[in-house]
Amino acid sequence: MGKAITSKTQDYSKWYNDIVVEADLADHSAVRGCMVIKPHGYAIWENMQQALDKMFKDTGHVNAYFPLLIPKSFFSKEASHVEGFAKECAVVTHYRLKNDPNGGGIVVDENAKLEEELIIRPTSETIIWNTYKGWIQSYRDLPLLINQWANVVRWEMRTRLFLRTAEFLWQEGHTAHATAEEAIAETEQMLNVYADFVENWMAVPVIKGIKSANERFAGAIETYCIEALMQDGKALQCGTSHFLGQNFAKAFDVKFATKEGGQEFVWATSWGVSTRLMGALIMSHSDDNGLVIPPKLAPTQVVIVPIYKSDEGLKKVSETALQIVAKLKAKNISVKYDNRDTQRPGWKFAEYELKGIPVRVAIGERDLANGTIEIARRDTLAKETISINDIDIYIEKLLDEIQENLFARALKRTQESTHKADTYDELKKLLDEKGGFVSAHWDGTAETEEKIKGETKATIRCIPLHNKLEEGKCIYSGKPSKQRVLFARAY
Amino acid sequence: MGKAITSKTQDYSKWYNDIVVEADLADHSAVRGCMVIKPHGYAIWENMQQALDKMFKDTGHVNAYFPLLIPKSFFSKEASHVEGFAKECAVVTHYRLKNDPNGGGIVVDENAKLEEELIIRPTSETIIWNTYKGWIQSYRDLPLLINQWANVVRWEMRTRLFLRTAEFLWQEGHTAHATAEEAIAETEQMLNVYADFVENWMAVPVIKGIKSANERFAGAIETYCIEALMQDGKALQCGTSHFLGQNFAKAFDVKFATKEGGQEFVWATSWGVSTRLMGALIMSHSDDNGLVIPPKLAPTQVVIVPIYKSDEGLKKVSETALQIVAKLKAKNISVKYDNRDTQRPGWKFAEYELKGIPVRVAIGERDLANGTIEIARRDTLAKETISINDIDIYIEKLLDEIQENLFARALKRTQESTHKADTYDELKKLLDEKGGFVSAHWDGTAETEEKIKGETKATIRCIPLHNKLEEGKCIYSGKPSKQRVLFARAY
Repeated sequence: MGKAITSKTQDYSKWYNDIVVEADLADHSAVRGCMVIKPHGYAIWENMQQALDKMFKDTGHVNAYFPLLIPKSFFSKEASHVEGFAKECAVVTHYRLKNDPNGGGIVVDENAKLEEELIIRPTSETIIWNTYKGWIQSYRDLPLLINQWANVVRWEMRTRLFLRTAEFLWQEGHTAHATAEEAIAETEQMLNVYADFVENWMAVPVIKGIKSANERFAGAIETYCIEALMQDGKALQCGTSHFLGQNFAKAFDVKFATKEGGQEFVWATSWGVSTRLMGALIMSHSDDNGLVIPPKLAPTQVVIVPIYKSDEGLKKVSETALQIVAKLKAKNISVKYDNRDTQRPGWKFAEYELKGIPVRVAIGERDLANGTIEIARRDTLAKETISINDIDIYIEKLLDEIQENLFARALKRTQESTHKADTYDELKKLLDEKGGFVSAHWDGTAETEEKIKGETKATIRCIPLHNKLEEGKCIYSGKPSKQRVLFARAY
Repeated sequence: MGKAITSKTQDYSKWYNDIVVEADLADHSAVRGCMVIKPHGYAIWENMQQALDKMFKDTGHVNAYFPLLIPKSFFSKEASHVEGFAKECAVVTHYRLKNDPNGGGIVVDENAKLEEELIIRPTSETIIWNTYKGWIQSYRDLPLLINQWANVVRWEMRTRLFLRTAEFLWQEGHTAHATAEEAIAETEQMLNVYADFVENWMAVPVIKGIKSANERFAGAIETYCIEALMQDGKALQCGTSHFLGQNFAKAFDVKFATKEGGQEFVWATSWGVSTRLMGALIMSHSDDNGLVIPPKLAPTQVVIVPIYKSDEGLKKVSETALQIVAKLKAKNISVKYDNRDTQRPGWKFAEYELKGIPVRVAIGERDLANGTIEIARRDTLAKETISINDIDIYIEKLLDEIQENLFARALKRTQESTHKADTYDELKKLLDEKGGFVSAHWDGTAETEEKIKGETKATIRCIPLHNKLEEGKCIYSGKPSKQRVLFARAY
């Protein structure tokens, strides 16, 4: 039908890129590493934002907005943060262009050099904690539970649409608390919010865990994460929630008067998810026909395509179609009736399959006579002819069923792709032959982790929460270990 | 009550700034010219976004997202655009920092210089039309009706919170059409959408008009605008909608195959409103007690404050208060019950007045006995004791009444501040003594406009739409004129 998607088994990476571009989700831009998020992709992202934003507000958070630009010196204030974030970034050095007096077009005006360079935020802990200093004086000002929806820039050398781009969209929560216990509870709460969203809205099963020191956020005491497995057996980090201790409060001198009359540094958390989640959604469910969108996030849940031979036929079919549209809308189901006469039904079928619309309804003149219509579900590609009566109830149930089926399918795949390794050879063999998560003993040292990473390209994705303790030996060093951790190659 | 607001009559500019900061709307940041939008301010902006976004979608538009960074060379492609926008802007020249080998902290890595500088978008016509080139081939791809919610940066020298900041938030619509007529109709439609929003949601009356050539958007054939009058008699441009002709299509070579088989350049529009609207909202309705928010945009529409002397008393009052909360929520009225025991009722009253909450309900133990409560409305500061029965219906009506009253009050003020001048002396006298809009004849030349601006600081705000034609003489040059235009000093 014109738009060719590379087969998943043939070239997974090309398959992914084809879907992103051909299903109108995103495209490369003229600026290296920056993407354009196309309307269909952005509409899915808007649905994600809306669901997440409600969850944040239901847990007591409010939104605010902090500056895009951060003075360079701020990054030096938190010792480990600067190592992690102040390296590959976009640096603003001037604030004016001028016409080249020698006729070379517009050039940077060297007289407009900034005294201190500004960095486009790669993350906002520094500018936010510098602001919080003015907002927090007493325990009465705590907790401060703030979220920001924003764009950030990290100068990545190798970029992939949604998964790794120089600019991306995200939310970053930054909270301030009077005690460590409260901050840790917040960190864990937000991890649970993320897991809830990714599993119940995106239909992507996740493992909740804690990062090893190597993979920890620069400036955090502890980084919690959710990890998911894609169809090619590689892991994708879907969200992180950080307990920052008093690191940023100390770096920016943010103290509060306690109830007891003392002065203490504030405790902090930060947590974020990004447009990377679009990559997780695409890679979890889609197939060689294109995108598959979980119904709860689909901008259009149902599309109705008329099949007719004459204007008279179209008129009859449209009458019924519009009745169905009204019924579905009354149930808050988003539906589109595509009666364009510029495209044939077959072209439309392929187009909506490519774009991942969960349910397609076809109505023909013959159907009208029989009182039936044809329904195709995107997840299984199964078609069914059903009675036109109670079609709204049928579709409502079908959307739920598709949502559940996508999750169940992904969960089964994840479980089948999770294996145990008791030796280093087993780990390597599993990674090469099966991919997926490999659960293995590790001695807890950064050296071992780095060596394994260097030799196998696999990283420790996480130490699962509520991990079963068991005596064992590190598969690499043979040193004693108390629990297994999850290894995988990852995006 | 602690937070002092400068009186409006004493110093309007300081009054404005005090309200913005003390009502927790926004604050200055550590980055020159960039503001922090605080939670209360951001919540109002979110309500504005939501209402506008629905209006855009109801008129057939979809959202998308384009890169923050634009190659410098793009600005040179449209001749007049470069003059208007490529001057005061943030220029990214490097993509890496490094540790200073001489121990001077982190410094720009001179080896990481970009081949071509990137500009942080001051507006996105160039990057978007460069993208549209790839999206538009045939008349079947038109119209393209896309909006973007984004941050932009314009390096302003003199900044004021919300009104003029280096970084601000906005939406920018960019549409592509097959004919000039269709593009002009779109330009006018969006002007009407803006006027509808500003009048019916923000309760700010506007004049719709067309800009003179001097004030036109750089790259536009025609700029439509809505203008409002603030309480100090100065005008504020609230939104603009531009008919761009084929200028950007020609600059970026965007042609389409017509139905008839020819090739033509695409016709364009762009239109935007920004966080500047927050300034219009604040300056239209607020008073010396603080902010006044129109009910339709208030994050909290009703606050309930308990008045009690004992725990027992609070318990009784709370029972009734929570019943009212439930009733109001059932009517989709956003309500907050403030039963904090850390603050006294008087403090709370002042706080909610400062923050502009439309309706305040006070419930005391005595009220319970009488079956009454006290209701204070923010717009007039009037208090009333009313029966507790049907309180939800009463408040629902009151919110509508406040919304209408705010608009009526602002409309009366605008009308009373609009005068005619038939001589240049009259114009100057009116501007100095009364401010407001001055309707006067103008000869239509840029020279005259510039001279009047230079001498009086007033600009032509617009040539009103559907302007009555009348023969007259330019107040400055004496040359013949066919219609009056609106002059004002402006933000």
